Amino acid sequence: MTSAPYTLILLRHGHSEWNAKNLFTGWVDVDLNERGVEEGHRAGELLRDSGLLPDVLYTSRLKRAIRTANLALEVADRSWIDVKRSWRLNERHYGALQGKDKAQTLEEFGAEQFQTWRRSFDVPPPELADDSEFSQAHDPRYADLGDDLPRTEALKNVIERMIPYWESDIAVDLAAGKTVLVTAHGNSLRALVKHLDGISDADIAELNIPTGIPLVYKLDEQFRPVEPAAYLDPEAAAAGAAAVASQGKQ
Amino acid sequence: MTSAPYTLILLRHGHSEWNAKNLFTGWVDVDLNERGVEEGHRAGELLRDSGLLPDVLYTSRLKRAIRTANLALEVADRSWIDVKRSWRLNERHYGALQGKDKAQTLEEFGAEQFQTWRRSFDVPPPELADDSEFSQAHDPRYADLGDDLPRTEALKNVIERMIPYWESDIAVDLAAGKTVLVTAHGNSLRALVKHLDGISDADIAELNIPTGIPLVYKLDEQFRPVEPAAYLDPEAAAAGAAAVASQGKQ
Repeated sequence: MTSAPYTLILLRHGHSEWNAKNLFTGWVDVDLNERGVEEGHRAGELLRDSGLLPDVLYTSRLKRAIRTANLALEVADRSWIDVKRSWRLNERHYGALQGKDKAQTLEEFGAEQFQTWRRSFDVPPPELADDSEFSQAHDPRYADLGDDLPRTEALKNVIERMIPYWESDIAVDLAAGKTVLVTAHGNSLRALVKHLDGISDADIAELNIPTGIPLVYKLDEQFRPVEPAAYLDPEAAAAGAAAVASQGKQ
Repeated sequence: MTSAPYTLILLRHGHSEWNAKNLFTGWVDVDLNERGVEEGHRAGELLRDSGLLPDVLYTSRLKRAIRTANLALEVADRSWIDVKRSWRLNERHYGALQGKDKAQTLEEFGAEQFQTWRRSFDVPPPELADDSEFSQAHDPRYADLGDDLPRTEALKNVIERMIPYWESDIAVDLAAGKTVLVTAHGNSLRALVKHLDGISDADIAELNIPTGIPLVYKLDEQFRPVEPAAYLDPEAAAAGAAAVASQGKQ
């Protein structure tokens, strides 16, 4: 065991049009809003100024993550790196909550049910019907998923579809000595952080990942952190995490 | 032999800051200018309106191609497809001409030498010195090339480094049934068109590919065109090709 051979950078996408509207998004393919575009630029500046230069980019198949990564890499002058995308990095599928107002859902179902759906480790919201305008059942983008296409997910389900991809692809690139940037979503990144930091099913409910601020892991050859992961802008990260925690409370 | 099973779309990047200045660019990583950004959007509209939906994107490692593709795919709502990048799709390396003014080069060396450097099949310009500000010899982006890094190229050299990649990667994706978009450069695309259409070493000098207009090939299982390739906007393509042909003559 020596110093950390592997560098992994996690980046949650910037604010989207539905963040601003306080709607549950999940797999609905909402674009960044103006603030989200600014966050993408800022993430690129943080990468550039830190000297952390990714060799390969992983994203979900959702445009708010893809655009955040594109913007950040343009600013960091690393647009030319290889790119891999997977539905396994998508946000948690929010089931029948997708498209619903968070504050209204809180009021309608009460704080306990609301918190269960948002933060329970293994209780998913009701399934989203395939004929909903917010369903992906007929989206050609996910035609290759077949029966794997989720209709709702709890964090547990996100972990079950995310970690195999971590092992089959992302960890392999790390093991090849590449600095890896993963640009994804609140819950797919929580799934990965839970795995890397060994956080319990109970404690993960309290973990909030802020948008637009690169989080850097230094990992040993068993992919264990050799030190606590660090945000490139710790002050902004603390403020951002607090903002995420207060969602739905407006 | 039946109808064409494979669809290949070629797209030359939009105008760059150096197109506008009439400088030889080659491997210098110049960004799009405003007109180039518009061309990227327009290419996306043409893709979207044609119903031609790429499943995988190939680009060079140069940002003018990468941004053109990103813009086009955003407009066509296909940002989520897989992406592969290779130096083998880069523009021809223009050697010691990189960074030089085209009109000035024409005046200084005369029409014959100028046309030889621009259009000769196998006579490259003088090599670019590794200590030139326009050299890629010390660019980490190309550190993996080793002795493959060009210091100058004729079209023949572009073909020699491009076609192996066509065979090892692009054709393999076509054979898997994927619609492939290749966003690259005037000369790397001429190399591919020469190969696909069986154009002679002499005749390829006259072929000009316009910027920003998707060129669609329908290929049989031996990757032979079943009909002449077609631009999605034929009128704009004819005007654009004429503009390329007249370069250096201002």
